[in-house]
Amino acid sequence: MKLGLIQMGATLDKQDNVARAAAHVAECKAQGADIAILPEIFNAPYSNEYFAEYAEPQGGPTWQALSRMAQENQLWLVGGSIPEVDEAGKVYNTSFVFDSQGRQVARHRKMHLFDIDVKGGQSFRESATFTPGNEVTVFETPWCKMGLCICFDFRFPELARLMVLQGAKVLVVPAAFNMTTGPAHWELMFRQRAVDGQCYTVGVAPARDEKGCYVSYGNSMVVSPWGDVVWRADEKPQVHVVEVDLDRVEEVRQQLPLLSARRTDVYTVEQKQP
Amino acid sequence: MKLGLIQMGATLDKQDNVARAAAHVAECKAQGADIAILPEIFNAPYSNEYFAEYAEPQGGPTWQALSRMAQENQLWLVGGSIPEVDEAGKVYNTSFVFDSQGRQVARHRKMHLFDIDVKGGQSFRESATFTPGNEVTVFETPWCKMGLCICFDFRFPELARLMVLQGAKVLVVPAAFNMTTGPAHWELMFRQRAVDGQCYTVGVAPARDEKGCYVSYGNSMVVSPWGDVVWRADEKPQVHVVEVDLDRVEEVRQQLPLLSARRTDVYTVEQKQP
Repeated sequence: MKLGLIQMGATLDKQDNVARAAAHVAECKAQGADIAILPEIFNAPYSNEYFAEYAEPQGGPTWQALSRMAQENQLWLVGGSIPEVDEAGKVYNTSFVFDSQGRQVARHRKMHLFDIDVKGGQSFRESATFTPGNEVTVFETPWCKMGLCICFDFRFPELARLMVLQGAKVLVVPAAFNMTTGPAHWELMFRQRAVDGQCYTVGVAPARDEKGCYVSYGNSMVVSPWGDVVWRADEKPQVHVVEVDLDRVEEVRQQLPLLSARRTDVYTVEQKQP
Repeated sequence: MKLGLIQMGATLDKQDNVARAAAHVAECKAQGADIAILPEIFNAPYSNEYFAEYAEPQGGPTWQALSRMAQENQLWLVGGSIPEVDEAGKVYNTSFVFDSQGRQVARHRKMHLFDIDVKGGQSFRESATFTPGNEVTVFETPWCKMGLCICFDFRFPELARLMVLQGAKVLVVPAAFNMTTGPAHWELMFRQRAVDGQCYTVGVAPARDEKGCYVSYGNSMVVSPWGDVVWRADEKPQVHVVEVDLDRVEEVRQQLPLLSARRTDVYTVEQKQP
């Protein structure tokens, strides 16, 4: 399976953001990708003052553009995330996934909102504008089942665990760590979640813009089920296709029984029914 | 709070192992430690062929020696682990904890047994000789609540999560990673568990003996709630006292709300009642 990672920045110009995304998706296809992955909030600036303004409904212009990118290039597309507004006017940080015929096959609304206040570092209150989603998201593809969550969601081992227990062999995470949390925790998190879940983890970040309203760490990466970094970007805009060997998942799970040896008679992790 | 980490090897001579442990505990006290911590299986060689032979009951000679070490040095002691045999003849990999008056205050029996078979790497089947424990172990100290588990136990994020939810601010892990899993996963695991739990993690390993029946990775370490390595040993025998600032736990928990922002309405991690 070949994953196309698109590390791109977003400006105030939504149409241009979407047009650049389309060009990058075509570039992924040209490089042989089966699935292209965009970063978190790729069509808008990452700032509370813009989320509501840039928000669109499911089926709106950006959604349609994403569907077309998938269909025209005949590849699967994890549409990073965009500000989504529902009928009640609530705004979500949402990732839509399309198959190679442009049909939506999954939707994840970020369920852990990013509220942080590090002394001398980063402050952000995503919950000021976004409403959280409530669903654990896994979806079937022709290659394997995949899990999907967004950025801060991946901080929570329960959610990663549930996606793996629901069958995901690849966890895809559009995400925008910053210059405080990125150097401290980004690679560490993707590596350990891969080891814990004995699965591939894939982080796709916005490119860094030092003058932007939110300075992304970049460093999009793919980690193997053994915890090795398969590929890691620097901070610049780039499109890169990474081949992953899904047999490695079963191989690692047999050699080191971290899933089968769980003491489910002593503890449980469960998804609550709504 | 000052933690004394004792990275020592074990030979076939049980009495000598225990005598050396006692000398190292006294050394911890001399360096100002509040709590001394021994490594996994410190009184016996780490090999299936010896566990039953070296096993002793709770209250047996090694247990008594540990109690005396704590009392005589007036410090708390996490007694690494020893092969323990119960009345029914079952053998466990058990850690006993003593307060500064030599009273046992906690006992953890390793609940995830180390069965591994890495192609071209390490093979081991701990379950061939040990019976697993069934309890999540946290205990109150004069400084904070602490969690305790043994080596392979710490591979399982559910258990780490439960110890933290039960109030632990420091997770102590006598552990013996090997030359396959150590370089790949040791530091990674201690760092990510610390970040996830926003707590200190402490790994205490046997010193490396290239000619021993099991070659320990060593690298005993202390990691902060932000995921920084506070101290890390190399592979040689050594005793080192590390001061940890418990205020840092609350500070990090306030800045980055990884515990309070858990979506307990969507998922739960729970300990099952026996």
